[in-house]
Amino acid sequence: MTIRSEAIVAQIEDVLVGWTMSPAPAKVVAEVLGWADLHGIESHGISMLTMYDDWRRAGRVDMQADIAILRETPVSALIDGGGGLGHPPAHLAMTMAIDKAKRSGMAAVSVRHSSHYGACGYYTAMAAEAGLIGITTTTTPGVRVAPTGGAEGKLGTDPWSFSAPGDEGRPFLLDMATTTVAYGKIRNKANEGLSAPLGWVLDEAGGPSTDPGVVVGGKGFQTPLGGTADGSSHKGYGLSMMVNILSSCLSGADLVTDPAHTQRPGHLGHFFLALDPGLFRNPADVRGDVAQLCDDLRATRPIDPAKPVMVAGDPERAMAEKRRRDGIVIPDGLKAKLKAIAQDTGAVWRLN
Amino acid sequence: MTIRSEAIVAQIEDVLVGWTMSPAPAKVVAEVLGWADLHGIESHGISMLTMYDDWRRAGRVDMQADIAILRETPVSALIDGGGGLGHPPAHLAMTMAIDKAKRSGMAAVSVRHSSHYGACGYYTAMAAEAGLIGITTTTTPGVRVAPTGGAEGKLGTDPWSFSAPGDEGRPFLLDMATTTVAYGKIRNKANEGLSAPLGWVLDEAGGPSTDPGVVVGGKGFQTPLGGTADGSSHKGYGLSMMVNILSSCLSGADLVTDPAHTQRPGHLGHFFLALDPGLFRNPADVRGDVAQLCDDLRATRPIDPAKPVMVAGDPERAMAEKRRRDGIVIPDGLKAKLKAIAQDTGAVWRLN
Repeated sequence: MTIRSEAIVAQIEDVLVGWTMSPAPAKVVAEVLGWADLHGIESHGISMLTMYDDWRRAGRVDMQADIAILRETPVSALIDGGGGLGHPPAHLAMTMAIDKAKRSGMAAVSVRHSSHYGACGYYTAMAAEAGLIGITTTTTPGVRVAPTGGAEGKLGTDPWSFSAPGDEGRPFLLDMATTTVAYGKIRNKANEGLSAPLGWVLDEAGGPSTDPGVVVGGKGFQTPLGGTADGSSHKGYGLSMMVNILSSCLSGADLVTDPAHTQRPGHLGHFFLALDPGLFRNPADVRGDVAQLCDDLRATRPIDPAKPVMVAGDPERAMAEKRRRDGIVIPDGLKAKLKAIAQDTGAVWRLN
Repeated sequence: MTIRSEAIVAQIEDVLVGWTMSPAPAKVVAEVLGWADLHGIESHGISMLTMYDDWRRAGRVDMQADIAILRETPVSALIDGGGGLGHPPAHLAMTMAIDKAKRSGMAAVSVRHSSHYGACGYYTAMAAEAGLIGITTTTTPGVRVAPTGGAEGKLGTDPWSFSAPGDEGRPFLLDMATTTVAYGKIRNKANEGLSAPLGWVLDEAGGPSTDPGVVVGGKGFQTPLGGTADGSSHKGYGLSMMVNILSSCLSGADLVTDPAHTQRPGHLGHFFLALDPGLFRNPADVRGDVAQLCDDLRATRPIDPAKPVMVAGDPERAMAEKRRRDGIVIPDGLKAKLKAIAQDTGAVWRLN
């Protein structure tokens, strides 16, 4: 039984309003989460409602948060998220960055006192849609990544997204955690009783391990992109640091290394940048070059002829096309949890 | 026999002027290359003169290049490097980005029709020194990196540098190729008859290999950061694409996939961005947070107590301190080549 993307979005909206969120921000959160499910990024879709419900019950996220613009210039803004879910202030931030970049050429907006904002790619897609280069970074609630040479978790998965407009409707869109892999991939290996490829996890002494259980059990660590010192994990570590500098040092959000950080998911920070290619050349020429570069990479001789080389954004677009046509499958376990949440909040159940 | 950094800089300047470069740009190139040698980045120091000499003789780089500012706004500029060495237009570009960011809050400068510009970190260090966040990217002359899933070289080493001011004189400074390792590391393994760690190279069918000879022999490929599909090399591949978008699509430089690209090293592109933290908060508070974050990472429990965890920029700063004190060793083979170049151009020989 598959479900239409529109039903998922409506279901999320109903639950959020049931949680006392106002209709306008609820619509934004639903749109961002629904986009993730449509694009195959289930880890950041409607499944997040189970975590948001936990946070809400624990008083760690404010469903009636007031968003405030604290500072503003023609090329920048600083936004206070009011301790609520991150999607509404993040959406406002990228909207402001885009508007300002269209007038001034480029702009950066910083958000603090926020929480989880969904999939990074949603926001950079907004910039690409507007014909602009887009960048976003965010801090994350968990601390489970050891820096190169370290035997202690100090960083989060600290994702980064970049976009550029190319062919109409086919932007370059990179959305990546700065870890080797997402936590979910490690958990899946553990659930299946499989070992993890070398470089995914470190044991509690910081040594290389192929046992996913060291991370799932909470004693070991995830690795920065690169995986091992030989594989240049100092690069993934450096990118993660820059994510923290842009997201929290600029905005004044909690540092990931602040002991209070993991206790206060309403104190994350985000960063957004939009840049108009028209500052440098005719925007159509820039788009043409981006499209050409992407097509040239797609034309690379593949290792396996059945698996053509793709460009960042291609797999998610293909998935969205499929799901717009065929609908989306929500696993039974998740569906049961969501139904309980909907019933508990008095929301209509739309996902049968 | 060690040599003072100042002597290396003077020697480079003399050779460049002997090659008919004007004193002002020669001084910039010498400063950038000398900075690399001082900071232990020998691959981008005075050793580059041997390659520049080859390019000069082949007419592939113009020592009397005219630099032109083609377009300018309060937040941007587009510079034509005139087909000369990249350091002078790159230095001008970052200087303009810094000046504009100090007035407007942020700025981006794009350079085309340029060539090799030395170590990325030099330029982002300029931004950090000025109290700003700095970013630079550049295209590279070689094409030897296969995208994830590909069995064909399509990309360069495509480096990226980010900086942020923190403790006075100790900025965060990440300078990284978007490949797993630099080509030189693979060549060194081949020279020593050692195998390469899995993930460094691919054979000519795009399969994993531990034989550094596949790359040195020119048939195999370097890998994007991540190394293997399991290690998420699509992330390094995506970062490399974004480097190309920022450096060449925005500026109008040759695309790395243009067949003419490797034949025209005077057609590289660069990108520079400077961002004033004062747009968002008191700059001293931002610096304080960056310094705190860096110190918190340095305090991570190390795997090996003799090897404390470092932050991007630390190893190079430690090396510069040592070399300012002890001088720099230039290997005999390189020294002989440099001496021949100096004699050939009638430059004084300063490196005995």
